[in-house]
Amino acid sequence: MKRRHFLRTSLAAGTAAAATLTVGRAASAVPVRSLGLDERRWDRATDGPLRLSSNENSLGPSEAARRAILDGMGEANRYTHGLAGELRARVAAHHGVDEASVVLGNGSTEVLRMAVQAMAGPGGWGPSPALLVVPDPTFEHVEQYAGPWGLELLKVPLRPDHRHDIDRMREAARAARGGSSRGPVLAYICNPNNPTGTLTPCREIEDWIREADDVVFLVDEAYFEYVDHPSYRTALPLALERPNVVVTRTFSKVYGLAGLRMGYGLAHPEAARRIQAFSGRSNLNAMGILAATVSLGDDTHLAHSLRTNEDARRVTYDVLDELGLERLPSHANFVLHRISGDQAQYIRRMREAGAWVGRQFPPFLSHNRLSFGTPEEMGRFAEILREFRRRGWV
Amino acid sequence: MKRRHFLRTSLAAGTAAAATLTVGRAASAVPVRSLGLDERRWDRATDGPLRLSSNENSLGPSEAARRAILDGMGEANRYTHGLAGELRARVAAHHGVDEASVVLGNGSTEVLRMAVQAMAGPGGWGPSPALLVVPDPTFEHVEQYAGPWGLELLKVPLRPDHRHDIDRMREAARAARGGSSRGPVLAYICNPNNPTGTLTPCREIEDWIREADDVVFLVDEAYFEYVDHPSYRTALPLALERPNVVVTRTFSKVYGLAGLRMGYGLAHPEAARRIQAFSGRSNLNAMGILAATVSLGDDTHLAHSLRTNEDARRVTYDVLDELGLERLPSHANFVLHRISGDQAQYIRRMREAGAWVGRQFPPFLSHNRLSFGTPEEMGRFAEILREFRRRGWV
Repeated sequence: MKRRHFLRTSLAAGTAAAATLTVGRAASAVPVRSLGLDERRWDRATDGPLRLSSNENSLGPSEAARRAILDGMGEANRYTHGLAGELRARVAAHHGVDEASVVLGNGSTEVLRMAVQAMAGPGGWGPSPALLVVPDPTFEHVEQYAGPWGLELLKVPLRPDHRHDIDRMREAARAARGGSSRGPVLAYICNPNNPTGTLTPCREIEDWIREADDVVFLVDEAYFEYVDHPSYRTALPLALERPNVVVTRTFSKVYGLAGLRMGYGLAHPEAARRIQAFSGRSNLNAMGILAATVSLGDDTHLAHSLRTNEDARRVTYDVLDELGLERLPSHANFVLHRISGDQAQYIRRMREAGAWVGRQFPPFLSHNRLSFGTPEEMGRFAEILREFRRRGWV
Repeated sequence: MKRRHFLRTSLAAGTAAAATLTVGRAASAVPVRSLGLDERRWDRATDGPLRLSSNENSLGPSEAARRAILDGMGEANRYTHGLAGELRARVAAHHGVDEASVVLGNGSTEVLRMAVQAMAGPGGWGPSPALLVVPDPTFEHVEQYAGPWGLELLKVPLRPDHRHDIDRMREAARAARGGSSRGPVLAYICNPNNPTGTLTPCREIEDWIREADDVVFLVDEAYFEYVDHPSYRTALPLALERPNVVVTRTFSKVYGLAGLRMGYGLAHPEAARRIQAFSGRSNLNAMGILAATVSLGDDTHLAHSLRTNEDARRVTYDVLDELGLERLPSHANFVLHRISGDQAQYIRRMREAGAWVGRQFPPFLSHNRLSFGTPEEMGRFAEILREFRRRGWV
């Protein structure tokens, strides 16, 4: 496939505030103004900024998902209990598990919330206060959900090769169990990890799980479908045989439905039941259910998404290598790469140039997380990055 | 406006299971088979059963809401933070409050969940365990959310005229505050009340709120827009001046967006901040935000919904009066009316006849909750009810 893109950049001299970089395609180049958060408008998406900050799927929902929404929207006045049952059955069949092992969520983040609260509550896995062990840095939601409940938080830095430091996480859990509080321990595993995009060897995770029946494992596999590595595999088999392991998946990434808030957890029926008690009632929206239901079996769109991501990764790697900007090995739809200078300033300058990137993930303050858009979008990003280099900004 | 409907009923003699009641319109009469929950399929809605069991708005989403979904669906791959900000501003303007007083929820039920958890948590309004005081019967979600957290639950029966028994609720709260536990008290007020559709005088509620700074009041006004009674008013002014009062509203009822899960709470900024800490991250879906944003200012659809509801209520009252089936005065989009015989059997027979009604609301087991559909739908329901009378079933 041949992808042509026209890109014109003109940076006004002087301060970043005065920059008026113009980015566009073919004859329809449009000026992109500095966008504040309050200007994040739906209708700007097509010709608007490059949205490379939230690990979304730039292809959007599949054709089948759009048709499902179109067909269903007239019935958006109806509650969704029946529809949710159908999706649950579809998810169960997709993974070859019993329906009692499926917990549907308002995004997989709701399943994370439910699991944290199942730990924090008095009817939960054990006496409070619990200890939460997380890698650092990682996806922030679990830590945020734990915040109000007084869980003790232990953040274990990633190893130099950016895998989870399973040894240290395991040791911390063991010490907590042997201590006087004897509260339950919740361990969060994010594999591939966000924001690094790196893998932790499944063998290390599995060994820990097999050894620690008294630790509750929350294994976030949001980027599962993107991984193409021979030793990578899901923790689902362990979850099905043990009531202390929960695997989460999402429709927000490879399926392109982030705005519809659809995800799920897979667990032993006993764990699923405990978690479900903390669910929102009627937690799923109709358009999300309909789109997710047809997306799950849509292998064509899945393959297209994965191919697009690979192509976009190649375009991105090329420009990073060309500019000598070190990058972590990505196994997801984003990459963490080195920048020079202040990260906040970089993110702001990128926004002013029409590209949303980042956010801050301490301690990686000389890096930036960049989501992969389409290959064409990454070509536009590459031009901006080269211009940054010319200006000495990166 | 002239509404014609054709209705043909033919009940086979014998058991309810053998009943083959046919309900349809004009020439397109279709057989309606016994529907199990697993058959609640989206695409049956038009010619399918009468859906009068969930207090939905049979008119469906407004034209503007559908257009908003259509325009936005291609961007369902994007997270919704920016869109949510726009809706928050719109809600704040609609009620003339500060944005800091608005808590958006995945349905108003999520706001109820957040508020219960803000009470239950150690960082909440006070030391646990808390006492939850609710009218009985009422909407069940608050009680359900409290379940896992060990809150003490006190259910105070409605008075004989079906208003909340504010005196007894107040006395219970006062006794709890004077007791040794000194835990916080959460009081749930549902006005109009579900499932009775009845009003509690606002003056009684307000007097209690003014007296009890140490009780947290959760005032559910899901059916606010339907009320046409001179003394009825929102508790919002009290919520804005006191950090212990939360008012909830929903887009599920008069706005016809139940399937999109959109609601909100209005509260003093301090209370809103406390509650918000228990929100799901990215809790709002894009189609819901878009539809809600245009629906809030759509006075035409609002007026149409209210007029339709009034017409449907008249059709319903007529047949209930004709058959001598006592009814409670409805101030919402449903009515609680007397039936004869077993309630579960009535609900099942109705389902077999093609109408979803009820569910069980003890202790009202010789009554049934009936949602108002369109006037035409209520005409079809009336014919079924008359047939039930002919068969001695009601």
